[in-house]
Amino acid sequence: MKFSQTFIPTLREVPGDAVIVSHRLMLRAALLRRLANGLFAYLPLGLRSFRKVEQIIREEMDAAGALEFKPPVVVPGEIWKESGRWETMGEGMLRFKNRLNADFVISPTAEEAFTAILRDEISSYRQLPLTGYQINTKYRDEIRPRYGVMRGREFTMKDAYSYHANEESLEKTYQDMGRAYRRIFKRCGLTVIPVRADTGAMGGTGSEEFMVESEIGDNTLILCKTCDYAANVEKAACKDDFERRSIDEAKAAAENIPSIKKIDTPSVKTIDELCRFLKTGAKQFIKTLIYRAENVELDLTGAPGASTLERKSPAPDAPKMYPEAFFAVLIRGDLDVNEVKLAAAVKASEVSLASDEDVIRLTGAPVGFAGPVGLTSLPIIADYSVTSINDGVTGALEKDTHYEHAAFGRDFEPFMLTDVRTVKAGDTCIHCGAALYEKKGNELGHIFKLGYKYTASMNFTYLDEEGKSHKPAMGCYGIGVDRTLASIIEEHHDDDGIVWPMTTAPFHVVVIAIKYDGAVKAAADKLVSELETLGVEVLLDDRDERPGVKFKDADLIGIPLRVVVGEKNLPKVEVKRRIEKENRLVEISAAADELSRIVKEELAALNS
Amino acid sequence: MKFSQTFIPTLREVPGDAVIVSHRLMLRAALLRRLANGLFAYLPLGLRSFRKVEQIIREEMDAAGALEFKPPVVVPGEIWKESGRWETMGEGMLRFKNRLNADFVISPTAEEAFTAILRDEISSYRQLPLTGYQINTKYRDEIRPRYGVMRGREFTMKDAYSYHANEESLEKTYQDMGRAYRRIFKRCGLTVIPVRADTGAMGGTGSEEFMVESEIGDNTLILCKTCDYAANVEKAACKDDFERRSIDEAKAAAENIPSIKKIDTPSVKTIDELCRFLKTGAKQFIKTLIYRAENVELDLTGAPGASTLERKSPAPDAPKMYPEAFFAVLIRGDLDVNEVKLAAAVKASEVSLASDEDVIRLTGAPVGFAGPVGLTSLPIIADYSVTSINDGVTGALEKDTHYEHAAFGRDFEPFMLTDVRTVKAGDTCIHCGAALYEKKGNELGHIFKLGYKYTASMNFTYLDEEGKSHKPAMGCYGIGVDRTLASIIEEHHDDDGIVWPMTTAPFHVVVIAIKYDGAVKAAADKLVSELETLGVEVLLDDRDERPGVKFKDADLIGIPLRVVVGEKNLPKVEVKRRIEKENRLVEISAAADELSRIVKEELAALNS
Repeated sequence: MKFSQTFIPTLREVPGDAVIVSHRLMLRAALLRRLANGLFAYLPLGLRSFRKVEQIIREEMDAAGALEFKPPVVVPGEIWKESGRWETMGEGMLRFKNRLNADFVISPTAEEAFTAILRDEISSYRQLPLTGYQINTKYRDEIRPRYGVMRGREFTMKDAYSYHANEESLEKTYQDMGRAYRRIFKRCGLTVIPVRADTGAMGGTGSEEFMVESEIGDNTLILCKTCDYAANVEKAACKDDFERRSIDEAKAAAENIPSIKKIDTPSVKTIDELCRFLKTGAKQFIKTLIYRAENVELDLTGAPGASTLERKSPAPDAPKMYPEAFFAVLIRGDLDVNEVKLAAAVKASEVSLASDEDVIRLTGAPVGFAGPVGLTSLPIIADYSVTSINDGVTGALEKDTHYEHAAFGRDFEPFMLTDVRTVKAGDTCIHCGAALYEKKGNELGHIFKLGYKYTASMNFTYLDEEGKSHKPAMGCYGIGVDRTLASIIEEHHDDDGIVWPMTTAPFHVVVIAIKYDGAVKAAADKLVSELETLGVEVLLDDRDERPGVKFKDADLIGIPLRVVVGEKNLPKVEVKRRIEKENRLVEISAAADELSRIVKEELAALNS
Repeated sequence: MKFSQTFIPTLREVPGDAVIVSHRLMLRAALLRRLANGLFAYLPLGLRSFRKVEQIIREEMDAAGALEFKPPVVVPGEIWKESGRWETMGEGMLRFKNRLNADFVISPTAEEAFTAILRDEISSYRQLPLTGYQINTKYRDEIRPRYGVMRGREFTMKDAYSYHANEESLEKTYQDMGRAYRRIFKRCGLTVIPVRADTGAMGGTGSEEFMVESEIGDNTLILCKTCDYAANVEKAACKDDFERRSIDEAKAAAENIPSIKKIDTPSVKTIDELCRFLKTGAKQFIKTLIYRAENVELDLTGAPGASTLERKSPAPDAPKMYPEAFFAVLIRGDLDVNEVKLAAAVKASEVSLASDEDVIRLTGAPVGFAGPVGLTSLPIIADYSVTSINDGVTGALEKDTHYEHAAFGRDFEPFMLTDVRTVKAGDTCIHCGAALYEKKGNELGHIFKLGYKYTASMNFTYLDEEGKSHKPAMGCYGIGVDRTLASIIEEHHDDDGIVWPMTTAPFHVVVIAIKYDGAVKAAADKLVSELETLGVEVLLDDRDERPGVKFKDADLIGIPLRVVVGEKNLPKVEVKRRIEKENRLVEISAAADELSRIVKEELAALNS
């Protein structure tokens, strides 16, 4: 391809609103242009790399036995109502009504679409397992799109969905997908951190996120300095720095503790103030936070305050849920509640701290004086850390008043005991006991054992060998194509521009003709033709520009190999890898073979 | 690929709502499933053929020098407001507001998006010409989607847009695209009817539609029995069966005609009744129809009734238009007005017959008595056929009253003289004089010289060699991918199913193992492996099904070559083309070479 016949409008200036390096370089190297906030157009050069990432993903999906489908991008609202997610997906899902007033969704994901298509086709265990995937346009109505295609409104996602007659089969496909994902990222030249979430927080099923380190990452990762433990902070666990006790053990441990006693704590509101006032440590404090939760699937029958809650199904076959419920969450004073763990524990779509008004209404006291003793208006969810407190301080449900000598098990009991602790740098690795540290990361991919959520709500059944009806178990597996492409640039660049890995470079070789005329033109054309015959993808810079401009552009767009054809060196040409500083001279007659060998070696090393 | 490892849920029954053969076969052969009205999901088998059509289009676009882009599917409403089409596109364009109340469009076409992207990048004549294209999802909010993917809501279109420093350059690209389109359809095995519209009805610029004959076609084609004249009835012309006269000629011809005279025509309303009443022929009648037009760009300054019309620009740089205007359209009594020609003549986005109330308001008479003589309330548009009437009958703007001896030029003059005649079967070919006939057709592709409409309204300028600013000329070129795929099936099928051309078949060869076990399994596996080594795409039917089921499925899904491996014939196998009735026996050792040769020959014949 001749430079003059393609369209690569490189930019010298860094566009003002592009704050991360991949966004800046995608604009400067003419891979991409912005059409509106969060909406981008790939230009021809960018599309070449985009398609290569797509093809790597496709090849690995096909090799794992997944079958490619092409569902529509726009899907009927009806199937989202069936699954119950019409109500729970939030405003990020773009809904619209057509001219006939029917509801539609621009797909943000496709559990519903695949399940709707396949439930009508699959009736027998002999048709299972089946994994379908698509590489298709998705849309999310981001309120603040930023960082270029890292967080755009429209994006391309590879999303796969698998259906199984038993959980062993789901486990096998889940493992196959995990291996396929590792291969995909390796082939793209990306260093990913696979982050497992098999700590129980996901309700017993498994999931794994594939993260890249990024200073602007959406996610905080908790990593072990010694072993390979890696977890999203949303799900990370650590070794307890206390003794977990059962109710009976806690009661026994509290036997010699003085009886609970109400004390005046005027003008004391924060834990710090209270610690100073009582001359005690935060670890003695039973912190009590009131949370509001939406769409709670946890059965609260018999829980304090639950009898007055509304409970309904969002769809005929969907599980019952409480549209709104409140919880008192207890945790040791020096620790923080992790809202994702809490949401998982109570099976809520969303949790957030209750408003001051709700706190007063539910606890009878202003914010700062909530506590579990005598609290009868809402269910108590206690973190395990509270079980070891047998001589604690906590709010007394009255202004300016606390209890001391409060003991878990003796003075109060929770509705649920679970892990809602936020793990922090410095906590102890649950596997090896070493110290944990934190990193920011961006999620590129996610594999997830969904279980029966969608096949149950959308009534997908098959018959087993004995003619009995069952619902298939389901898994889902996603990769963001744009985000993967941008992450390659984040990991592979220098001050001069992109440094593409061979597998995703828009071209393998750039041939720069110093002046595309006469003997130089003839030599460059011949070299390009030889390279193309050998299957090498070549960009020929035939422009009437100064050599400096051509060198700068070649560095900026980051083609892995550069050949300079100039009059003074012929019949030799200068060859340089993008990562090297110095040229070396090669006989032009030998150049095609040598370059082709390097291309094949680098491709093989990444694809192996 | 093994049948048991892919997903081809063929259907014996014809789905009830599928009325055309391609829709029925796409469902029965498991290429496609319906997710909602007008929204379809391609299954793995269908996607293979879909991608082949896409790839043929891509190769021909690339060969023609077009560059592939990937704009977003969702685009900001802002750019449609700039071009003025926000108001003129009608309800088929899907508009929505996001959570921040901004307007967006799910692209039905992308003149605006390409122009918006490229106007910021192109500043010099040296960057022109440039042709960009995409193969991407489009959406049209069809009120009555039907005929499967022939008229769906979501579809995939290849759309290209070219920009030029002069009209010769546009003409060259337009011709290149016409050739590329002919090659695309030939490679797909499709018989298309290229329909030119260079008769002047498009305002001097050119366009060509690529049609396939179809009983459910949206379009009526006018074809010549002798020469290659082919036109959409919307734009078709024919040889005049009258003498076109100028105003002066008409006046002279009317010299010896009696003066115009008002006559009573009680209870006579239709032309037939009038002809019987006056014992004359319809060709003597000057039919006068009142039309309402929307978004009229024609300058009506000085026309009757125009001074009171509202006139405005839909966008700052867009041409001025009348949101609503009325016209009296004259045509010879035996002819019909073509509304597409009329809309083009008055540069309107839409024309339709005026309501009875508007007719009464504008002509002072009930429907049936409009006529040009003394009509001062609205502009007259006359078809050329009226110019030869020098002793005509026409309405007299009073109930139950007509004029006789009305003469064009003498008794009335039009605001515009043009061709708005609907050409019919039996009319005379404008090229060769032979009789014309009609066919129904579906449009698969369309190439169009747009001129300056978008570059002017969206303010796209470049500098020429002398530093002067100009707007580029523009062309656009579309092909419906789904429609092309369905049309291949419409043209290539028989009672048993699809008969794929080799280029777009999902697989080249189906190998049916009568019983996939023992020696048959070994022989079939070896043959498949040999074929795949030769680059042949093979579907191996390894299912535990009766041979009859496998044969029926092979015919239904239409793989061009079939090989049957059965115990009784080994070491021979049965080979049959899909189009043949009879098998022939071939030594299995020679089968791979022979099949591969046939595949390559058929591919070469179509791709040549």
